[in-house]
Amino acid sequence: MDNAMPSGSSRPTFVERHLGPGREEQTAMLEELGLASLEELAGQVVPADILLSPEAAAEGLPSPCDEATALAELAGIATENTVVRSLIGQGYYGTATPALIQRHVFENPAWYTAYTPYQAEIAQGRLEALLNFQTLISELTGLPIANASLLDEATAAAEAMALARAVCKRSGARRFLVDRQVFPQTLAVLRTRAEPLGILIDCIDPRALAAQGDALPEDAFGLLLQLPGQDGGLWNPASLLGAAAAVGVVTAVVIDPLAQVLLAPVGELGADIAVGSAQRFGVPMGFGGPHAAFFATREVHKRQIPGRLVGRSLDAEGHPALRLALQTREQHIRRDKATSNICTAQVLLAVMAGFYAVHHGPTGLTAIAERVAALRHGLMAGLEALGLSPDPGPGFDTLLVRTPTADDLVQAACRGGFNLRRLDGAFGISLDELSDPEELARLLRCLAPDGEAAQRAVECCSLALAAGDWRQPWELLPQRQRPWLRQSVFHHHRSETELLRYIQRLAARDLSLVHGMIPLGSCTMKLNAAAELGPVSWPAFAQLHPFAPADQSRGYRRLAADLERWLAAITGFAGVSLQPNAGSQGEYAGLLAIRAWHRSRGDQHRDVCLIPTSAHGTNPASAVMAGMRVVAVACDGQGNVDLADLEAKADLHAERLAALMVTYPSTHGVFEPAIRRICQLVHGRGGQVYLDGANLNAQVGLCKPGLYGADVCHLNLHKTFCIPHGGGGPGVGPIAVAAHLVPFLPGDPASPEPAPHGAGPVAAAPLGSASILPISWMYIRMMGGPGLRTASQVALLSANLIAHRLDPHFPVLYRGAAGRVAHECILDLRPLKRSCGLEVDDLAKRLMDYGFHAPTVSWPVAGTVMVEPTESESLREIDRFCTAMVAIRAEAAAIEAGRADPVDNPLKRAPHTLAAVTADGWDRPYSRQEAAFPAGEEQRATKFWPAVARIDNAYGDRNLACTCPSVEELAQSASIATAA
Amino acid sequence: MDNAMPSGSSRPTFVERHLGPGREEQTAMLEELGLASLEELAGQVVPADILLSPEAAAEGLPSPCDEATALAELAGIATENTVVRSLIGQGYYGTATPALIQRHVFENPAWYTAYTPYQAEIAQGRLEALLNFQTLISELTGLPIANASLLDEATAAAEAMALARAVCKRSGARRFLVDRQVFPQTLAVLRTRAEPLGILIDCIDPRALAAQGDALPEDAFGLLLQLPGQDGGLWNPASLLGAAAAVGVVTAVVIDPLAQVLLAPVGELGADIAVGSAQRFGVPMGFGGPHAAFFATREVHKRQIPGRLVGRSLDAEGHPALRLALQTREQHIRRDKATSNICTAQVLLAVMAGFYAVHHGPTGLTAIAERVAALRHGLMAGLEALGLSPDPGPGFDTLLVRTPTADDLVQAACRGGFNLRRLDGAFGISLDELSDPEELARLLRCLAPDGEAAQRAVECCSLALAAGDWRQPWELLPQRQRPWLRQSVFHHHRSETELLRYIQRLAARDLSLVHGMIPLGSCTMKLNAAAELGPVSWPAFAQLHPFAPADQSRGYRRLAADLERWLAAITGFAGVSLQPNAGSQGEYAGLLAIRAWHRSRGDQHRDVCLIPTSAHGTNPASAVMAGMRVVAVACDGQGNVDLADLEAKADLHAERLAALMVTYPSTHGVFEPAIRRICQLVHGRGGQVYLDGANLNAQVGLCKPGLYGADVCHLNLHKTFCIPHGGGGPGVGPIAVAAHLVPFLPGDPASPEPAPHGAGPVAAAPLGSASILPISWMYIRMMGGPGLRTASQVALLSANLIAHRLDPHFPVLYRGAAGRVAHECILDLRPLKRSCGLEVDDLAKRLMDYGFHAPTVSWPVAGTVMVEPTESESLREIDRFCTAMVAIRAEAAAIEAGRADPVDNPLKRAPHTLAAVTADGWDRPYSRQEAAFPAGEEQRATKFWPAVARIDNAYGDRNLACTCPSVEELAQSASIATAA
Repeated sequence: MDNAMPSGSSRPTFVERHLGPGREEQTAMLEELGLASLEELAGQVVPADILLSPEAAAEGLPSPCDEATALAELAGIATENTVVRSLIGQGYYGTATPALIQRHVFENPAWYTAYTPYQAEIAQGRLEALLNFQTLISELTGLPIANASLLDEATAAAEAMALARAVCKRSGARRFLVDRQVFPQTLAVLRTRAEPLGILIDCIDPRALAAQGDALPEDAFGLLLQLPGQDGGLWNPASLLGAAAAVGVVTAVVIDPLAQVLLAPVGELGADIAVGSAQRFGVPMGFGGPHAAFFATREVHKRQIPGRLVGRSLDAEGHPALRLALQTREQHIRRDKATSNICTAQVLLAVMAGFYAVHHGPTGLTAIAERVAALRHGLMAGLEALGLSPDPGPGFDTLLVRTPTADDLVQAACRGGFNLRRLDGAFGISLDELSDPEELARLLRCLAPDGEAAQRAVECCSLALAAGDWRQPWELLPQRQRPWLRQSVFHHHRSETELLRYIQRLAARDLSLVHGMIPLGSCTMKLNAAAELGPVSWPAFAQLHPFAPADQSRGYRRLAADLERWLAAITGFAGVSLQPNAGSQGEYAGLLAIRAWHRSRGDQHRDVCLIPTSAHGTNPASAVMAGMRVVAVACDGQGNVDLADLEAKADLHAERLAALMVTYPSTHGVFEPAIRRICQLVHGRGGQVYLDGANLNAQVGLCKPGLYGADVCHLNLHKTFCIPHGGGGPGVGPIAVAAHLVPFLPGDPASPEPAPHGAGPVAAAPLGSASILPISWMYIRMMGGPGLRTASQVALLSANLIAHRLDPHFPVLYRGAAGRVAHECILDLRPLKRSCGLEVDDLAKRLMDYGFHAPTVSWPVAGTVMVEPTESESLREIDRFCTAMVAIRAEAAAIEAGRADPVDNPLKRAPHTLAAVTADGWDRPYSRQEAAFPAGEEQRATKFWPAVARIDNAYGDRNLACTCPSVEELAQSASIATAA
Repeated sequence: MDNAMPSGSSRPTFVERHLGPGREEQTAMLEELGLASLEELAGQVVPADILLSPEAAAEGLPSPCDEATALAELAGIATENTVVRSLIGQGYYGTATPALIQRHVFENPAWYTAYTPYQAEIAQGRLEALLNFQTLISELTGLPIANASLLDEATAAAEAMALARAVCKRSGARRFLVDRQVFPQTLAVLRTRAEPLGILIDCIDPRALAAQGDALPEDAFGLLLQLPGQDGGLWNPASLLGAAAAVGVVTAVVIDPLAQVLLAPVGELGADIAVGSAQRFGVPMGFGGPHAAFFATREVHKRQIPGRLVGRSLDAEGHPALRLALQTREQHIRRDKATSNICTAQVLLAVMAGFYAVHHGPTGLTAIAERVAALRHGLMAGLEALGLSPDPGPGFDTLLVRTPTADDLVQAACRGGFNLRRLDGAFGISLDELSDPEELARLLRCLAPDGEAAQRAVECCSLALAAGDWRQPWELLPQRQRPWLRQSVFHHHRSETELLRYIQRLAARDLSLVHGMIPLGSCTMKLNAAAELGPVSWPAFAQLHPFAPADQSRGYRRLAADLERWLAAITGFAGVSLQPNAGSQGEYAGLLAIRAWHRSRGDQHRDVCLIPTSAHGTNPASAVMAGMRVVAVACDGQGNVDLADLEAKADLHAERLAALMVTYPSTHGVFEPAIRRICQLVHGRGGQVYLDGANLNAQVGLCKPGLYGADVCHLNLHKTFCIPHGGGGPGVGPIAVAAHLVPFLPGDPASPEPAPHGAGPVAAAPLGSASILPISWMYIRMMGGPGLRTASQVALLSANLIAHRLDPHFPVLYRGAAGRVAHECILDLRPLKRSCGLEVDDLAKRLMDYGFHAPTVSWPVAGTVMVEPTESESLREIDRFCTAMVAIRAEAAAIEAGRADPVDNPLKRAPHTLAAVTADGWDRPYSRQEAAFPAGEEQRATKFWPAVARIDNAYGDRNLACTCPSVEELAQSASIATAA
């Protein structure tokens, strides 16, 4: 900025675009609440002893600006990244994202702004897309139960370890055998995860084991292989898998999904579990993520599979309908009994990978895989001609060359425009979908000492390609024999026109932020602005390999440094790690940091984690994973931490106290006034304070956890900092920590050094889901310090307006001392249960008829809903929501008064489908209009139709089916229909 | 390509993605038609004497490739463009396209793949968006009738000239007075347009005229001003406009819409017409286009206004509904009586500009305009401090500095990152929305001789900005006084969330290629692939000023050269001009080339243009504009040109024969076998053959107009070469010509040289709609020669399959000798009119109930529909369409048989709305199911609802209303509703 120039003539900032209510609306809202200003409201909501002045809050943050300025600055940062063709492999591969999937899924708000499909009736589109993904994974692996994705390959492998331990019947077994051919980042994450749980990791050579017929150690509970291995080698693991099964050792295989197209499914070879990354199915490398990892297992483990699982069921009218299955498996139910803390999936990326398979179909996928294998064969011949003999034996895409000149050759390749994998005395080349003969020729020329040798190598390569005998070495391998992916969805979308329409048809079934507010109390669903999202598609961010040479990723590192600095300023902390790729992973990483700090001081025995009963279920699950014992702390009638109980528990466990986990503002939506005292109390007993940042949207710019006593805090960039929910992921869960914990932030997954005191990496890539960090960078850059404070204040304003308006109809539970709620409010529906049998679900489903996504239901208090409007919703939208809620209360009153039937009423029969409302016959005691257009005639113009009627969850769980109906199944149901 | 490498391992090409039917489907379709191969079909359809071998057809065209290869090549071309901040002005300005409009409109297939809104019931979304645009223009200009956009400012000015001449009552007046302050490209296009019509253009100094009180010449019919002028100056034209009106001279003003925000509307000052470009309302410069120009005039000229006009009306249920108004004005009806040949609008760009105004609202627009004016004031002070005194007097955004060092200063600015406008002994600077004080400081530093002078200039600038007295010189000007844009749509969409939802709500009302086929015979609606569209958004294509220094646009010129070379290869011609920015403009440019060629040979008298009666109405309209006399040629019973009549007419007019315009294949969808003879016949009489390329999609890769005798041919890149229709524009209509016509291709609009023999520029920018040319480049590059041939063959295959299937139900009119149609077929509905009163419109509207856009109705033959499936529709989609058509035939049969009421039946009452079908009452003799889901139960899952019932066109034309309802009107109708 030129200081000589007055700023009056500068362009308006992004702030007014982000905020739903404009200045006039804000004034009207304040008036309705009897308030003079946003600052007055903040003073009533936030305890005085933590509320910061605007200046103090904005320290270290940029000034607000407009889209163009921020985009130009970010474009400058992007130019510091260099896109080089990466043949590094190591879990990340070049892939041709079909442009239509890029534009119509990845860049389509109908897909990326949707929430997790808990309200399944208005989420059938992405549920079907996820079912396609699960079907793909199941057919690839030969295992019947595949989940809707996990965070990355390394954490998926760790989940396999956890499942293996949970289901293994060998008593006292605590040893996990890990193929030395797993990628280093996988091993690093496994080590992080194993240590707190007391699991011992043995790196083994499985081929030697298989060859020697050695018995597996008696205390081994599981065995993890990787195929192909990191050296690119393939072999037949069937006998080893069989041997493991025979002694009750649970087996898991990390697979490459593209290699698996050609190979016999590992499930058929005897593996209990298969994991891997679907990145190379059309998802850009993005400097490490986000991508969809997958996890598949046998039917018998269906109740232990981690993450989300889409299953088929029926709706109230008997039609097929999809929804999340077996939810009682999940951490939010099982809490400290959980074996995993996973809640987020990588839905958007799984959807992309699924569509990639839908587009290519089995024939196309096979062609891609065969081409890669054939090119590897050709490259091997070329390398041999150069005297660079790769490891022999069958393989898929990767060649490893051991040579003393490895470093020189890697540099020569780099000068020629190729990144290779650099290893000690060796280098690796991994081909992919983008490779072709011309690329091989260019690569060989880079590696050749002179033009003549190059020519010879290219000719040898060419001859080998022409000979087409790449399958010869594969004869040793178990190959895929049977037809697969026979489901029609994988056969009808070869043309772009057909796939486009399919994608759009599915999108049209899902309610997203495109349609209206998603007033979830548990998840901040604010605007995901187009200017924030755009840069994610820039090649300079999308095309980088996470292990590319450091001088190629300067832009990413500058972006990360900015973001870390800003997030530290926002939270009042000293250091930040962006690595955790979900909130749950942030919790875990934060607790690991605390644990490591205690250990660094010799306090190995400190393992008690105090958690209020109001906490989200992930808290205890994470604590257990971090090797802690969970001790519950009671809450008082106002929903606050019961200070007396906290003190008592802290005293009782003072010697072993490791941490308190506290959500702030509380999960009840209140800024507990005693937060400073709580922190002091825990510190006084030697414990650390972990602050759950799920509700940070109420605090940003108003107060800072690091200043009022917390030691570590995780943030949900996908809540507070505008990363969209993607229909159920990706998320990003960085942690911010006080200075003493900085040394214990997550380590580098690529580093061979063991982490100090166990604070190893928690994700496969150094920056986790790096490619979506530009979204939060853009948000903070555009809003600036002052804009962020205003955003929080408007979020408080909107929540308080809703509380004020709806309290006469649904009593608001929990308020602060001044009678205000924070950024969300809990509405009590339990009186209605008593008066007219109304369940929370009835309200949730009836809201669909009004065109709304339900608030969070029955959490944190059963029989209630929690509403969070965020600062991005306009007063008109808030009006519309309140009107709908009041109208629903009137519908309940009609039941109470006996004017409506207690069962056959619009609430109990909600949601109403197009089929029901347009049927020729209508025999309900209420009208079609009341059923479908309860908000009035004008609702017709914007009507969003639930795709199915209310779904029978129990039926689906009893009859679990997690893949698309098979050809046989469809034929059977068709013949039944014909017969009937 | 590396020749040493076998190509078997290369990646699959884009061809199979573009084609709807896969190989197996093609085989089935061929079998159904009794054909062995696509080549056999082509042999039956295309006359043997013009059909080329695959090799000959592919000559000069690239090999097919995949998306990634083509995108990488195009990215390489893009790097040859240099994006420099352009302050050139001259009709093109920097603008901040809101990212949400970019992503959710410009990059959203729901907007860009829609067709022109002729079927208004399924086009209410973009009709409303266009009504917003018209309202904006009307309120800006103070003129009540604003059209839905024109091609560019220069052609809009030419249309003003034509309208002025048509409505001026001064007998014999042929002089048009043009402000010497109009931009050179505007003047150049006016000269092109004037000359063939015998209009004399006088360049005048209107301020001198006004000051001197001189009388206007007696033979002047019109006066065109530009405000601000190209020197940036503003003045009050009221007295001159009044003087002109007093003597019956029609007045038009070219306005800058952003300046007009602050100035009194020119309509209020007395102007009859206002034109201009809405580019700076959020549409990127794109090297010259496409942008939406506008045209507004008085109520009295409503029947003469050129282009499309959206008007309000009522539907069959009495609800408000929008549709295209006063269609009888348009050239396709008026033919050689038309005063304009415009058919395409720039809908997508007008929609963007409209949303830009909706987003900013009047307050935001005013703030932007005031900022620009204030910055100009500051810049003037800074320039004065440098001793560079700009022209004094009030102005808006532009300063002109006359100085002997102009060239050096322009170069200094360029080195500093600024393009200025270079003039003889002067330079111009035009500020815009992106300017800010910091930019002024940087610019002044570039222009200053040393640091000290720079510092002083920056300080002066800063002081002037701080003083805020920019309005002082404006006191002389008539300024906007009254509140404007009071309609609610311009007030409720300040936040991104609200605007996003509004955009999506409107999009959801429109049926586009996203939903299903649009089987128009008159317009090839094929796949607009995401890979083709993506590059249009690249800054290297979007951000270039059309008059930027040539070394900054090398990439564009290389792209244009590729495309010209490929289009020449496809058509068999020697040269191509990409300048015409619509098909109509291509026709006009082609005829001008013919005319200029004749004149170059001394054949000034050759002015007869033969046009078959089957021709599109634009043909005669264009011919008249090119100064030709239209002589109609009869068609025979097969729809072919009547050779005897042609010969007779050619003989009769042999001396004066200028050209024949012929569409090939004919508008009846047949390859006339005599085409070579027709060409020879015309050539034999000294005439030239103009080939209308509307049906080129049947020819590409099979035959080439340049090889069978045509001299010139226009192409519709928005039909044959995948540029989407944008809901009614943009289009691109290049012409390809034989060698002898190459010198007469359209001239450079920026060149001060007069065009030889009148073949001047036809558009404002040298490359016309340059920024969308990458779409066609990508298509041709990916399909390659062989792919293009296959595409045409599959288009023939699909059309013939439909003809084969539907002929038993609706007789197919017109076939070639082998009984085959070409790429489209005409279905006769006239028997049904007789048997049961069925109108073509009934079928068109009923198809909506089935989820289809209607084929072309009643053209080229009344009482028929023309169907063109294109190669991009799958066999399944063709099946669905044929099934619907057959079902409709059965519905008609029910009327014929007396089983259905002749009036109250699903055909006559189509389309059926959600309101009708979900009403509590239902009193029709057919069921709700038959009404809304005639294709069966499964239609529910994909149901597309017409937003309104059948629209009453006559009512709307009788009660013309072309803007959003005013606040007063809404209040009135609300009070009527309350009273009732």
